[in-house]
Amino acid sequence: MFTVYHHPFSPSCRFVRLALSEYETRFDLTVEQVWRPREAFLKLNPAGEVPVVVENEGPPLCGAAVIMEYLEDTRGFAAGKRRLMPDHPDARAEVRRLTEWFLSKFQEEVSGPFVSERIYKVEMPPSAGGGAPDSASLRAARTNMRHHLRYLGYLVATRDWLAGDTITFADLAAAAALSSVDYLGEVPWQEDEAARAWYARMKSRPSFRPILGESARGVRPAPHYADLDF
Amino acid sequence: MFTVYHHPFSPSCRFVRLALSEYETRFDLTVEQVWRPREAFLKLNPAGEVPVVVENEGPPLCGAAVIMEYLEDTRGFAAGKRRLMPDHPDARAEVRRLTEWFLSKFQEEVSGPFVSERIYKVEMPPSAGGGAPDSASLRAARTNMRHHLRYLGYLVATRDWLAGDTITFADLAAAAALSSVDYLGEVPWQEDEAARAWYARMKSRPSFRPILGESARGVRPAPHYADLDF
Repeated sequence: MFTVYHHPFSPSCRFVRLALSEYETRFDLTVEQVWRPREAFLKLNPAGEVPVVVENEGPPLCGAAVIMEYLEDTRGFAAGKRRLMPDHPDARAEVRRLTEWFLSKFQEEVSGPFVSERIYKVEMPPSAGGGAPDSASLRAARTNMRHHLRYLGYLVATRDWLAGDTITFADLAAAAALSSVDYLGEVPWQEDEAARAWYARMKSRPSFRPILGESARGVRPAPHYADLDF
Repeated sequence: MFTVYHHPFSPSCRFVRLALSEYETRFDLTVEQVWRPREAFLKLNPAGEVPVVVENEGPPLCGAAVIMEYLEDTRGFAAGKRRLMPDHPDARAEVRRLTEWFLSKFQEEVSGPFVSERIYKVEMPPSAGGGAPDSASLRAARTNMRHHLRYLGYLVATRDWLAGDTITFADLAAAAALSSVDYLGEVPWQEDEAARAWYARMKSRPSFRPILGESARGVRPAPHYADLDF
């Protein structure tokens, strides 16, 4: 049994929930508002960040990459055909590169600004930085979004899945990151058919269902957000 | 044979060089000034970032974490007692957490600002952001430095090495990150004896020697930088 400390709209947290679901593990969710530091949470993760996962009475696993590698170390072999990490070192490097791309680079340039400005700031008290979104930051994120969507489209047009022939952690990372932005209606799907078709496949997986049912305080989802045929 | 695309003062690149040396591999170095994007380099890593490592005719390995896991996948078992990653999944998670701490969080809060403001900006043309360092950024980095040094000191005072009983990738990551800051004389070693003693051990390893011999354009090293008994 896993406990997941998360925020519902954090792409890294969505990635971890997708991975745990794909591996058919059972987990409880605890929402952590990282802008209100709780001492008990800082003991789990001195960095004060989500996601953190605890398996049974085990030590805290801090951060999406750490959790991914832990799942590979403890569940990879047994997962058989459902394994989310390939065998060959070169292919593993490609999965890790793209996972990091979407959870770090895309996060810095696109999903981080969108989610902070339009979701977290609504939940935050003014003393923690809450308030109106910064329009310059949103404008930059919109420009960056188009570059990333084109890169994603290029990759999935030349491969069956993002990192190769089978679905891997990289697909979950990219879909998790896009889903938070898509909630806000900020993914211009009409610009890239290959990316759209790939996301439609991801969205229809059972692991995605809980994520499509979520809603943020004071922010309605884009009309097509939960629509499998968008 | 490895080729390493790097910048001499990038902590992530220093980490990779240390890891390759500890595993007694042969490698060539190519300096990449990432603020002057070269098309051939962007083909290797579309993210445009160092480090990138290529083994023989293999595909590019992009980013410190990807390279670390590749070394573990391809060299870990054969390294025997020199292996830089433990066996147990919990212990592996701790090594990965601390490696990420020093290459991401410490980089964001301390080593990134110091190296950008005091080393890269000297090398950069004004059009790419070169010029005088930003003193507010340096002040913030100095404050953050003390918190990180205390955390490092706490960890190495309670364990033989940073992540446990043996030296691991985490020690290399932390030492790499500190070395770039120490060049600039910005590590207040007198504030934490345990951290100082640990760094003295790291510094005296043969893998560290090339790093202690480096110099940045227009910036002298702190007098104790290469001194093993500082």
